[in-house]
Amino acid sequence: MNFPSNLFNSHSKEDGDFFLGITKILGFKPKKTEIYRKAFLHRSANKKDKDGNPVNYERLEFLGDSMLGTIISRYIFNEVPLGDEGYLTKMRSKIVSREHLNELGKDLNLIRFVESRIPKTHFGENIHGNVFEALVGAIYLDRGYKYCEKFIQKRVIEPYVDIEQLEGKVISYKSLVIEWCQKQKKTFDFNVYEDTGNDVLKHFAVKLSIDGNVVSKARATSKKKAEERASKRAYFALQEKMKRPSR
Amino acid sequence: MNFPSNLFNSHSKEDGDFFLGITKILGFKPKKTEIYRKAFLHRSANKKDKDGNPVNYERLEFLGDSMLGTIISRYIFNEVPLGDEGYLTKMRSKIVSREHLNELGKDLNLIRFVESRIPKTHFGENIHGNVFEALVGAIYLDRGYKYCEKFIQKRVIEPYVDIEQLEGKVISYKSLVIEWCQKQKKTFDFNVYEDTGNDVLKHFAVKLSIDGNVVSKARATSKKKAEERASKRAYFALQEKMKRPSR
Repeated sequence: MNFPSNLFNSHSKEDGDFFLGITKILGFKPKKTEIYRKAFLHRSANKKDKDGNPVNYERLEFLGDSMLGTIISRYIFNEVPLGDEGYLTKMRSKIVSREHLNELGKDLNLIRFVESRIPKTHFGENIHGNVFEALVGAIYLDRGYKYCEKFIQKRVIEPYVDIEQLEGKVISYKSLVIEWCQKQKKTFDFNVYEDTGNDVLKHFAVKLSIDGNVVSKARATSKKKAEERASKRAYFALQEKMKRPSR
Repeated sequence: MNFPSNLFNSHSKEDGDFFLGITKILGFKPKKTEIYRKAFLHRSANKKDKDGNPVNYERLEFLGDSMLGTIISRYIFNEVPLGDEGYLTKMRSKIVSREHLNELGKDLNLIRFVESRIPKTHFGENIHGNVFEALVGAIYLDRGYKYCEKFIQKRVIEPYVDIEQLEGKVISYKSLVIEWCQKQKKTFDFNVYEDTGNDVLKHFAVKLSIDGNVVSKARATSKKKAEERASKRAYFALQEKMKRPSR
């Protein structure tokens, strides 16, 4: 998937694909699409602005990294009302860890939008997190703080952040689900299958059934992650029945 | 200046003083004053909430630190359109350095609002920057991102941040002013006098006159800083005449 070299002026099919793909990820229509283009411009593409200055996603990454940290800070501040400064800082580092951001960017398959001169297989792992941050920076420039906040809520906090798990109170939702099923003498089944579709990366989907009824579904880049995600969903869906007696 | 121990319920004279003092610094009326009280509550005050959990400014400091970093990032991003990620990061560290924040907090004399059990002379230097950050956190919780941005523009960026100086292009505005006066065969005078007023810290004021006319005034915690600040103001006031030929 190569973008045309007259990147900022063309209105080709690739442009339409980019616009559609980005809109789906954002959950809203971008206003200034050229900012989002920049968010995926790798320095190897060697793009210049009209004055001959290099253009790539790194400046947006700087902005997005900061934005993301602040929005997550605000979230933790609310969620952990009794945590002191040191504890809040520790929780934030867990959420915005390089590893976590790479996972996020990978799951959204952001790499498919990256324009570069080197083959995508040659990028290191960090490309996923870096373009995710750049995307956050682009949202901020295009639509401001509130949209950034909504995007991070939808794409980071809701699907990935679980304070109980981060605090180590819940190690694995899968084991909670299994334990509960065994106690209740219910059967359970994790039906995992490959579901890569048009994605560049391999993806797995899972359907979790309890007593023969599908209670949740999930999709991720590994079997383990997909199972854990489906279990978490099942846990919250069945929370009233399943939650531990100590709560 | 001791605050009453039933801090969050009292409506004493101290409350009025606090409210007035804070309003002056903020440039707008706070809505939830109790949040601002918290921003000045030192851990030594040993305050607890109704459930017995400790309350002090450290959580707000966590939030404010992050907020400040983001707003400064956004500012630098705009101001230095050609700086790469590394350069932007370096500029941001200079602006939000501990030393710089302490200077800021000191100039605003924020320490006068701090409630603690240990004498104010026993605090380290960092108390000034820490409560400044906590104040930013309080503004965010009280009025949101936009107000934070305005406050930082007014209290950090306008009076303290000068990209040219940070970039090392201008070492000293005082020397620029003197040089210009000498070339133009004009007389100049820095009239410095102590102007501590009701402040806890010593302050100096300066009036800069050129050819007998006062062109700028400034106030700061040292003579040198006050002179530099007055020179910067004179420089921008007289910019058309004074700016270097290379610009």
